[in-house]
Amino acid sequence: MVEAETRRRARGGGGAARRAERTSVSIETARYIERNIPVYDILTDEALEIIETNAETILEEIGVNFVENPKALERWRNAGASIEGERVRIPRGLARQLCATAPSRYVQHARNPARNVEIGGKTLVCAPVYGPPFVRDMEGGRRYATMADFERFVKLGYMSKWLHHSGGTVCEPTDVPVNKRHLDMLYAHMTLSDKPFMGSVTEPSRARDSVEMCEILFGKEFVRDNTVMTSLININSPMTFDDVMMGALEVYAEHNQACIVSPFIVGGAMAPVSVMGTLTQVLAEVLAGIAYSQLVRPGAPVIFGAFVTSIDMNSGAPTFGTPEASQILYGAGQLARRMNLPFRSGGSLCGSKLPDAQAAYETANTLNAAMMGGVNFMLHSCGWLEGGLVASFEKFVMDADQLGALHKFAEGITTDENGQAMGAIREVGPGGHYLGCEHTQSNFKKAFWRSDVLDYKPFETWHEEGGRDTMVLANAKMHQMLANYQQPPLDPAIAEALAAYVAHKKASMPDAFS
Amino acid sequence: MVEAETRRRARGGGGAARRAERTSVSIETARYIERNIPVYDILTDEALEIIETNAETILEEIGVNFVENPKALERWRNAGASIEGERVRIPRGLARQLCATAPSRYVQHARNPARNVEIGGKTLVCAPVYGPPFVRDMEGGRRYATMADFERFVKLGYMSKWLHHSGGTVCEPTDVPVNKRHLDMLYAHMTLSDKPFMGSVTEPSRARDSVEMCEILFGKEFVRDNTVMTSLININSPMTFDDVMMGALEVYAEHNQACIVSPFIVGGAMAPVSVMGTLTQVLAEVLAGIAYSQLVRPGAPVIFGAFVTSIDMNSGAPTFGTPEASQILYGAGQLARRMNLPFRSGGSLCGSKLPDAQAAYETANTLNAAMMGGVNFMLHSCGWLEGGLVASFEKFVMDADQLGALHKFAEGITTDENGQAMGAIREVGPGGHYLGCEHTQSNFKKAFWRSDVLDYKPFETWHEEGGRDTMVLANAKMHQMLANYQQPPLDPAIAEALAAYVAHKKASMPDAFS
Repeated sequence: MVEAETRRRARGGGGAARRAERTSVSIETARYIERNIPVYDILTDEALEIIETNAETILEEIGVNFVENPKALERWRNAGASIEGERVRIPRGLARQLCATAPSRYVQHARNPARNVEIGGKTLVCAPVYGPPFVRDMEGGRRYATMADFERFVKLGYMSKWLHHSGGTVCEPTDVPVNKRHLDMLYAHMTLSDKPFMGSVTEPSRARDSVEMCEILFGKEFVRDNTVMTSLININSPMTFDDVMMGALEVYAEHNQACIVSPFIVGGAMAPVSVMGTLTQVLAEVLAGIAYSQLVRPGAPVIFGAFVTSIDMNSGAPTFGTPEASQILYGAGQLARRMNLPFRSGGSLCGSKLPDAQAAYETANTLNAAMMGGVNFMLHSCGWLEGGLVASFEKFVMDADQLGALHKFAEGITTDENGQAMGAIREVGPGGHYLGCEHTQSNFKKAFWRSDVLDYKPFETWHEEGGRDTMVLANAKMHQMLANYQQPPLDPAIAEALAAYVAHKKASMPDAFS
Repeated sequence: MVEAETRRRARGGGGAARRAERTSVSIETARYIERNIPVYDILTDEALEIIETNAETILEEIGVNFVENPKALERWRNAGASIEGERVRIPRGLARQLCATAPSRYVQHARNPARNVEIGGKTLVCAPVYGPPFVRDMEGGRRYATMADFERFVKLGYMSKWLHHSGGTVCEPTDVPVNKRHLDMLYAHMTLSDKPFMGSVTEPSRARDSVEMCEILFGKEFVRDNTVMTSLININSPMTFDDVMMGALEVYAEHNQACIVSPFIVGGAMAPVSVMGTLTQVLAEVLAGIAYSQLVRPGAPVIFGAFVTSIDMNSGAPTFGTPEASQILYGAGQLARRMNLPFRSGGSLCGSKLPDAQAAYETANTLNAAMMGGVNFMLHSCGWLEGGLVASFEKFVMDADQLGALHKFAEGITTDENGQAMGAIREVGPGGHYLGCEHTQSNFKKAFWRSDVLDYKPFETWHEEGGRDTMVLANAKMHQMLANYQQPPLDPAIAEALAAYVAHKKASMPDAFS
């Protein structure tokens, strides 16, 4: 595990420096995960071929809609698709052939190069929760999210060792006009963190603003030559590509910025209730969406996305961490790998209203599937609550801690002589114990992953300290992280230029709240 | 999913019968899991061969201790091992060769044949927590377990749909003398449930009592010809087989009753801190233990066990649901399959003091690994808390509910025409929705697994109902299950004979409390 590390050190000498050293705060970010373990394939090749054949049938016979987007229809017509109204029917094989120009992995640059991430192949990049209009913490309960909440989340993300990415709309800052939010959000990601981030997708113009702000942050030439954003383009399942999302995709693809092309499916509502049927629709949608990105600009980086929940057929509520969702994740991962594309799915998904046992069961089920199923970009890695309506401060910290376990698991098993430990087994022998032996002494520091949040104390100590549950422990940890937060250095001229851009843009339009 | 079902129905006719029907309690037990999915192999064949070679080296060069058990030493000497004091050194290949007579799967019979379980191959049988001296629930907090607690757990186990097995020492009934507990525990399993159960292992004489009680319950001939108990034989790692556990194993093997031969390892203390080293020691221990069972009686049913935790090197506390424990589980599963033996590992393991998010993360991590790693017999499937010191009533219900998700996941993915759902995709088309379509109507009842404990309600409803967390929801469910409990019918003559046996045995010896 290579770690990018920044340390705060006292500038004075002598005792003060040593004291400062002892209390110094270490801000570490783990390198993104590179799996040294196999992925789990749930479907046979035969089943995958059925899905692929059926997906082509959907594209050819049923088609997909590109809504209010004459330019897209024109692009498709030129590529050989048949157009009828807004319906695009794509001859068998064409979409897949167009997808072939999409890269199998790409680097997303951060303003701190040590925080660059590589997305695709065996990697797993973790980004926080995206989209909730509400936040929750122990002090304030459940409430509409504000820009102050947003900034707290960006700071927490920066301070989270196992989080590689600052994300995008970590929560919706509802106190900022809808048409200006993206400016404040991007400014926060760019100045409060030095990890990579996502661009705005809620209007094509906001995607352009995102690109322009990146040009200030990274330099125009750098943005022209490099990918500095990965943004989330949802497909309106079933089989509908709306002009807003496609407009944002067009902006990003034209600028060689990455998009996650992601069916957004509540199973049974936006796709069939069966796993095979859902996977077929997912593949058809992704094929169409990614093919379209390559029509805009061949070689534009994209991610095969799949956000699929199951549904509680009693209440109609989406459900998370369920076996069907895991099966779909595994199957979609296989389909993405067969296309040689990076894959996005999973995260801290849960339906619970509180960061309690339900939240943790559901989250752990999904995190495990994401790890084993070959996810390359995991949005919602931490902090998701209540079906995505709420970003939870405590759960953010709890989940981000669990991501550490994924890092360790992915390292795989060392099979060298030291790993085999035959010397230790000989030394200790029957009836002995290993605590003091040399092999233990020289390996124990890295032998076992250790949570920074969960409780490992004996019952009596835990009881004396107040019998705190995980939510309470995470709340304390969250406050500690925020207290220790230090803004990563940024060229003041750049910070000023970003602020000026935001101020100018805000002044140029009236507030809109919907 | 084939289900054994018992329904309480009112005997009266007319409206009363219909009302009773509506409020009737359904006591269902799901059939044990038969995996229709692949298992996850984390180790390469090369790594597995290294482990196997090194394990043979341990047996040959270091050896294992059979403590205070001259008969065992005699058996080993006759088989060709070299004996030096209590140390048994086993020539390369001999242990594995002896293990070859152990069956790859076996049926454990329940007194209700519909509840028989098959252990081995692709099956997964779930049994509850085993061993805690304490219990915890919301009303009584943490306290020493009593026989009344034990009986409550057996009833809950009987009422738990996804639990196939009644288990053994679900908690230690500390209000009953140590030397008489096993009698009351077996009587409870035999009379309060009709699911299969485990025998006593704390003294060879108690194993004999277990066999004799089974002879009353099932009939002598039936016990002679069939396996009616699966009991837990822990190995004193490293490489030590004590006379108590081996004495119990001898009794069971002689009677053709099944034993789990299970290294009990806190990593870094009882085995090396490395995954490969631990797996090597586990294999050596299991090879020696299972070989010994086959020396006692060739063909005696056994399970390759592995109970391995990691350790918090800061405090020395065992830790659960960690990545290293999962890696070891996966590796041990591969080793067991290469020996063609049933495999035991996993469960609701956690270190948390409460059934909170920590407990659920750790538990879910282990349950997922057990499912994917090919576990055939999962002890501690539900109810484990605080590193196994506590059996939690609420967590029992929460975990047992999660086992339902494993059942659904293991069914795999249906690839037939109905599963492919192309008709539905055609019918709905771009921009439509699937809620009303025929495919959804005819499939939704079985499409998605649904928790019976977790909360799927909208925030407002949940809030109005008291904003209950998972522990509170599980507590309510637990009381409901106990209120609905009905004792499964048993021939009164058998029940009487069992009671008489217990009374007679208890009267024959003074109380012992240690």
